[in-house]
Amino acid sequence: MKVNGTHYRSIWLDPNDHMIVQIIDQRLLPHEFIIHELKTWQDGAVAIKDMYVRGAPLIGATAAWSMYLASLTTTDQAALKDIGEQLLETRPTAVNLRWGVERMLATNPANYRAEAEAICDEDVEISKGMGRHGLELIKEISTKKKGAPVNILTHCNAGWLATVDWGTATAPMYTAHEAGIPIHVWVDETRPRNQGAHITAFELGQHGIPHTVIVDNTGGHLMQHGLVDMCLVGTDRTTRCGDVANKIGTYLKALAANDNNVPFYVALPSTTIDWTIRAGVSEIPIEQRDAEEVTHVRGKDERGIHSVQITPDDSPAANYAFDVTPARLVTGLITERGVCEASEEGLLGLFPEDLRFETKT
Amino acid sequence: MKVNGTHYRSIWLDPNDHMIVQIIDQRLLPHEFIIHELKTWQDGAVAIKDMYVRGAPLIGATAAWSMYLASLTTTDQAALKDIGEQLLETRPTAVNLRWGVERMLATNPANYRAEAEAICDEDVEISKGMGRHGLELIKEISTKKKGAPVNILTHCNAGWLATVDWGTATAPMYTAHEAGIPIHVWVDETRPRNQGAHITAFELGQHGIPHTVIVDNTGGHLMQHGLVDMCLVGTDRTTRCGDVANKIGTYLKALAANDNNVPFYVALPSTTIDWTIRAGVSEIPIEQRDAEEVTHVRGKDERGIHSVQITPDDSPAANYAFDVTPARLVTGLITERGVCEASEEGLLGLFPEDLRFETKT
Repeated sequence: MKVNGTHYRSIWLDPNDHMIVQIIDQRLLPHEFIIHELKTWQDGAVAIKDMYVRGAPLIGATAAWSMYLASLTTTDQAALKDIGEQLLETRPTAVNLRWGVERMLATNPANYRAEAEAICDEDVEISKGMGRHGLELIKEISTKKKGAPVNILTHCNAGWLATVDWGTATAPMYTAHEAGIPIHVWVDETRPRNQGAHITAFELGQHGIPHTVIVDNTGGHLMQHGLVDMCLVGTDRTTRCGDVANKIGTYLKALAANDNNVPFYVALPSTTIDWTIRAGVSEIPIEQRDAEEVTHVRGKDERGIHSVQITPDDSPAANYAFDVTPARLVTGLITERGVCEASEEGLLGLFPEDLRFETKT
Repeated sequence: MKVNGTHYRSIWLDPNDHMIVQIIDQRLLPHEFIIHELKTWQDGAVAIKDMYVRGAPLIGATAAWSMYLASLTTTDQAALKDIGEQLLETRPTAVNLRWGVERMLATNPANYRAEAEAICDEDVEISKGMGRHGLELIKEISTKKKGAPVNILTHCNAGWLATVDWGTATAPMYTAHEAGIPIHVWVDETRPRNQGAHITAFELGQHGIPHTVIVDNTGGHLMQHGLVDMCLVGTDRTTRCGDVANKIGTYLKALAANDNNVPFYVALPSTTIDWTIRAGVSEIPIEQRDAEEVTHVRGKDERGIHSVQITPDDSPAANYAFDVTPARLVTGLITERGVCEASEEGLLGLFPEDLRFETKT
């Protein structure tokens, strides 16, 4: 998608020097747009660990490109396997990281560049699939509204900067925008890390999509007053039965959507479906992160980018990173193969080959 | 309630100099605790306008004490009426401000001190009433939990610093704490102005009540996992039928409480009941405030207290200050006269004399 009028992916091989991989340093967004160069696989490891890049698909792609950089200095399989292990340690719970590394290790090192490029291109195709299928839902609302802007509420960042391009939840938005359908996006700031205010707002603004940042408390009021036509969010993990784990606060928006008859859609690449579990609330463990993300807020002032403390010195804080939205609150799942009901039947209808997976319970 | 081990009200006459009224400068909380002196009615006007003080009951009390300060220089009724008019302009929509000024103007200026003291004492009694009635609800849960801490979730600040003492939603918490019933409070930070993180956390911490600050997105997850025993919030305005306008985001917590069978209580002095309207969502206009409250966050760092910008320079933001929670989501209303159902029957049962009011619709 576009930044300052130029099209970017979130990761790419330097066209002038094929020994350098370039990424956007997302830590400084939206205040500074800096392109960062990865020259060694260790640079890639730091970029993943220190969150220059984030978002499951982009982490997988960065791991793949890091393996490519490693292959420029060694083609020894044992050495590459060892490097792969070290990359896995940068973010131990990131499923796509393991997937990216293992896919590269299954490839002849001489073909690492082509394989990394294929991983990126495939990810873009998956996003485009979600975009194409989600577009139909937006079109339908647009027609009902006789072309008045379709108001879409989103939470967190499931945008192109979390993938290689287009994004997951944002793919239908960008696709609708390219198709000339007027949309307006309500962007939840998404405390505590403010990925909405920092990254989603940046993405949409740079690509020219009308949007408004709101605090996470606002969505219910907007829906009560008919100011939201659909909710559209991403997910980190979807159970076999359609329960959806996503950034903390997603469940509250789904409740409000349900209470006000606003359709609530979740966009997901099928790789994030966990066929081994059914009940999200009881079976998905919710990570607790550092309380400092709650007690401190990062932003810019005249001195630069830094953090301020908002709580009393002695008040403890808790930081649950995700919550689970039960399938009963989800209108539909938007995948690269189409839109389905948030249920086992719905998911197996689109992905019949996954019947082979067994649930644990 | 206590600060640094000493009992304070939020406003009081200087015991050593009866020509000075003292308040807590709430703009600097929780980072600095500064007592500010009002020596003229104009000082009082500034304190209201610039939000040294906030909260409907405290604004009313500050207006009353400002009139007292005015009476030290003039007892001319016309002059005092004119001063009253000027005080009203400091926060034109504050109902209690008008009430405080009018009550003073109906008094002989020679008795202004006694009247201002009476206004404060009466407010404390109202809070204590809510505390006493809310205590019974907490006690019941405590008994069921065999004395394990009762987990209460609150939103915004309906605390003693919004009233003269004890608060509204916090009155049952302080009363339970004084009665030796163990409680723990989940404090919503309450974006955009962070009154929870700034003021509620400060209040509870200083008084020794166990609490944890959370981002506003968290409550649903906590309720799904049985970590909230009751929600307890304040209100700015309650309709005749029990719909409740309160800080933006309250509605989302009520939805989550309803979805998880967690009781959702609202504490209110009967003065905030608007007997002239029935349907909150359609009849209560929701104030939109400055977008900068969304785009910027105030906190402290090593240089002091200041604001940082969290959004892109070009992203617009919207700032709806309140939302309306329909009565169907409210388990009960805690008033100074007792607890009732959130309905016309419930409210008229406690306040039968208010049958005299007519609704507009």
